[in-house]
Amino acid sequence: MDDMILVSIDDHMVEPPDMYDNHVPDKYRDLVPKVVHNAETGVDEWEFAGNKSSTPFGMAATVGWPKDEWGFNPGSYTELRPGCFDVHERVRDMDANGVLGSMNFPTMAGFNARTFSEAGDKDTALVALRAYNDWAIDEWCGAHPDRFIPLGLVPMWDVDLAVAEVHRIGAKGCRSVSFLETPHVQGFPSFLSGYWDPMLAAMCDENMVLSLHIGAGFDVIRRPDEAPVDHLMVLACQISAITAQDLLFGPTLRRFPDLRIALSEGGIGWIPFYFDRIDRHFQNQSWLHERDDFGGKLPSEVFREHILACFITDPSGLLLRDRIGLDIIAWECDYPHTDTTWPESPEFAWNEFQEASCTDDEIHKITWENACRFFDWDPFRHTAREDATVAALRARAEQAQVDVTRMPRAEWKIRNEAAGVGVTS
Amino acid sequence: MDDMILVSIDDHMVEPPDMYDNHVPDKYRDLVPKVVHNAETGVDEWEFAGNKSSTPFGMAATVGWPKDEWGFNPGSYTELRPGCFDVHERVRDMDANGVLGSMNFPTMAGFNARTFSEAGDKDTALVALRAYNDWAIDEWCGAHPDRFIPLGLVPMWDVDLAVAEVHRIGAKGCRSVSFLETPHVQGFPSFLSGYWDPMLAAMCDENMVLSLHIGAGFDVIRRPDEAPVDHLMVLACQISAITAQDLLFGPTLRRFPDLRIALSEGGIGWIPFYFDRIDRHFQNQSWLHERDDFGGKLPSEVFREHILACFITDPSGLLLRDRIGLDIIAWECDYPHTDTTWPESPEFAWNEFQEASCTDDEIHKITWENACRFFDWDPFRHTAREDATVAALRARAEQAQVDVTRMPRAEWKIRNEAAGVGVTS
Repeated sequence: MDDMILVSIDDHMVEPPDMYDNHVPDKYRDLVPKVVHNAETGVDEWEFAGNKSSTPFGMAATVGWPKDEWGFNPGSYTELRPGCFDVHERVRDMDANGVLGSMNFPTMAGFNARTFSEAGDKDTALVALRAYNDWAIDEWCGAHPDRFIPLGLVPMWDVDLAVAEVHRIGAKGCRSVSFLETPHVQGFPSFLSGYWDPMLAAMCDENMVLSLHIGAGFDVIRRPDEAPVDHLMVLACQISAITAQDLLFGPTLRRFPDLRIALSEGGIGWIPFYFDRIDRHFQNQSWLHERDDFGGKLPSEVFREHILACFITDPSGLLLRDRIGLDIIAWECDYPHTDTTWPESPEFAWNEFQEASCTDDEIHKITWENACRFFDWDPFRHTAREDATVAALRARAEQAQVDVTRMPRAEWKIRNEAAGVGVTS
Repeated sequence: MDDMILVSIDDHMVEPPDMYDNHVPDKYRDLVPKVVHNAETGVDEWEFAGNKSSTPFGMAATVGWPKDEWGFNPGSYTELRPGCFDVHERVRDMDANGVLGSMNFPTMAGFNARTFSEAGDKDTALVALRAYNDWAIDEWCGAHPDRFIPLGLVPMWDVDLAVAEVHRIGAKGCRSVSFLETPHVQGFPSFLSGYWDPMLAAMCDENMVLSLHIGAGFDVIRRPDEAPVDHLMVLACQISAITAQDLLFGPTLRRFPDLRIALSEGGIGWIPFYFDRIDRHFQNQSWLHERDDFGGKLPSEVFREHILACFITDPSGLLLRDRIGLDIIAWECDYPHTDTTWPESPEFAWNEFQEASCTDDEIHKITWENACRFFDWDPFRHTAREDATVAALRARAEQAQVDVTRMPRAEWKIRNEAAGVGVTS
């Protein structure tokens, strides 16, 4: 366990209140998103284009709290574990969890830049989106290039702008774009429509990965009015099969042989069943397809050429790893969401690997090799391999006295306010 | 393989044109569904309440045809293999496939009596629905009570009428009701609403199984406009997880401890992943649930107490049968649909069992014991066990010279017309 190297391609940052300070021209300073503290309720809110959102300060950042304080009641930056929004604290938390590398999805901005897509003033929206990318890539990841895989967003409201943004962020080393898993459900053209093809071509040109995080496409399921919140949490990863179906039986993957897609947090246990189904379907329903519709391959083979499947915990999927394909499975951490295994990720993952009788070689593929190859991110560019292990990083955290204790929100508030951390006045 | 006993709880009949002859009062004779032969196109159509449907005569009955003739172009009874619509021929086809017992879903009537639910004249619709049940239970199954598990329909437009129909068909030995997997998607109240509770209570009283066949709920997925027909065929069994979620995290299963539900054709390979997810969710998101929300059990345990999971071919699922539960898995045949393995079902199933290293005891559970217990149908009431095996039934078919050759539709037409079979004039 101590010798594992962990690279997580699905974590999240809560954007800090000063994120725009260095990245927008003066004339936009009052127009881009800003944090407003509601003194009456004690809640921090992001304000943009007339809308207020407090979601980043509740369920999206529970990592420091005891479970009985989880819930949908929002709060303030001061109530959060600082690793949620402070990149240097984040690195300390990664050390404590033995995690070498991490790719971070946005919170305020939305997995697919929804906050900007929904704004009426598209001029400002584009400035705000680009500034988000500049902050995320240059400032957050740039502060620790040895630890972060840069992920950007594209303006979904205009594919030409999206193409330009892919090239712009690609040029500065961004490795991936976060996008909607089922764009048609949010009123955008579907993957099958061909509308996004210029953007996908640009991503191939820039050698970047399309990351489709679960949750964004949840409305692809028409759920009963009475459905409890469990539905969202349980079924979100079932949607990855629907996404894969759109990509595989639509023209997308076949049209772009070099396109690489990560199904972030989609899990892996659904894949053997899906593969059985699509290969049997393709062979049995031969009246629907020409033999070379998939280039002489089975649909599952085309899937394997394009897709990286990512999981936090997935004991059944690991048992059938051979049927999935050992080169398309990647582990993830999901800090600071409720599903994260922080700060015991090494123990959690190791136990699952042992239960599934994974070999050391298989574990290395799953915990870092597959992700690093897929995202073309060299983990040892800045870090010697012997310093990249769980044991080495945890030793550093111990020396730095990183405290991983879960504490009540009220306790965080007292400590953070005393230290002047996350105070928004 | 020869010693296997096969009981399939998912096959289909194409209702014959004379189905209503013995089951409706004279004054309704012209009002209930009837078959009309279009001499110009050569297509048979069911006419009811001003609507015409030819779907029963194409994709729903491909069993006799070579694959290059599969497709959505409808035809006539005479083009079908007679086992689709003639119960005595069906039994011969079951013999040839080594299948002892079978439960048959309707075609013209719709899995959930849709044909009757959509009719404006609900008086006639109820007469037609009850007559369907009388025909299906008394005439089709009644002709060979040793071979068929009776399945009925309920009027979905009125839960009180549904309760009455459950009791009426229960009294004459019906073992199951076919119902919508996601009723809310078709504009009916959801399972979570409680609306169906009186009917579910009646089913428990009558010791009947609720059978939820895939396909009926396909619109639960908002698919792209451009989605090919593959989507329906591939994703239909993914919907069983959504159905299970409605039943398990809604109050239904917990409110009716005796309720038994079969997820017909839903497959089994999705279940280990789903179990991993729901049990982890329940334990991890403890703020959402009291410890005894599932009666002190895990959600997967409650699933196992209520649900029978049914598959045609499912190699990955069989490998993880222990994680699913050996007592909740049942094999099925799906005659006469495109996915059926007829007439090589024994070979097909046996190979999969061998690949998964199933023991004889496990095979017996999966091929007949679980289904017979769940549907409370005794396969040996009319048939001695030694006469119930694949070998015994196939020997009978050989003696009776059952020909299983696939033939072009035109060839069937010539043969059937010559024999006066399925001719609708």
